[in-house]
Amino acid sequence: MIKILGIEHIGIAVKNRDKTSNFFKNILGIKNPISEEIIDQKVITEIFNTSKGKLELLESTSLESPIHKFIEKRGNAIHHIALSVENIDSSLKYLKEKNVQLIDEIPRIGAEGFKIAFIHPKATGGILIELCQKNK
Amino acid sequence: MIKILGIEHIGIAVKNRDKTSNFFKNILGIKNPISEEIIDQKVITEIFNTSKGKLELLESTSLESPIHKFIEKRGNAIHHIALSVENIDSSLKYLKEKNVQLIDEIPRIGAEGFKIAFIHPKATGGILIELCQKNK
Repeated sequence: MIKILGIEHIGIAVKNRDKTSNFFKNILGIKNPISEEIIDQKVITEIFNTSKGKLELLESTSLESPIHKFIEKRGNAIHHIALSVENIDSSLKYLKEKNVQLIDEIPRIGAEGFKIAFIHPKATGGILIELCQKNK
Repeated sequence: MIKILGIEHIGIAVKNRDKTSNFFKNILGIKNPISEEIIDQKVITEIFNTSKGKLELLESTSLESPIHKFIEKRGNAIHHIALSVENIDSSLKYLKEKNVQLIDEIPRIGAEGFKIAFIHPKATGGILIELCQKNK
């Protein structure tokens, strides 16, 4: 089985992160975001920690980025939900046993060094869900 | 100023909640969702508590529901982010002073009896954000 620990973050796709970033920082007062480039996803992230779940802005760095393609279709929008799990390897093994369609069959490294894997939206009723585990 | 306490829930618009509900319940193992009809929003909610943030399924009960209109345009998708605040009245007063465009200028009652108010997506770079406070 899977042990879900909670919502780790919400991924938000934005064409340009300035407006949303300013809103989070200067209006909502969520300070000290952490920014990072994730090369293999072709995105820059900017992560705002509410102390109970993070808001992750995703801005593409290339026309080939999945985030660029998502925004072309939908405009700025909430992109995915990341759930923190106790053990990502056993979670993926469990999902495979249950024939749940996965985007990532083995974990890769995402923002902040987390081990992450996406579940295919076909398995969830159209919602993109990421599982993640803090890398020790 | 606004004191953000964390992500209270993520609102997820679904044409029919069975598939996503079954996935949350039977695959992710998030048990005992709470279902409720919100008459003024013309939706049925089904709320799954991860223990650190909730996942709120939203299914419309009428063609006039904002959720029905959203799904017509986008299909099943993540609809909004709800942030829990210490004091919703003073938060809205602060946002008005800052000329932040609001959908709800005064709080109304949402799912689970929370006092809620939506900020207009124009103010946030296109993302629908709800503020909410547990009603004592």
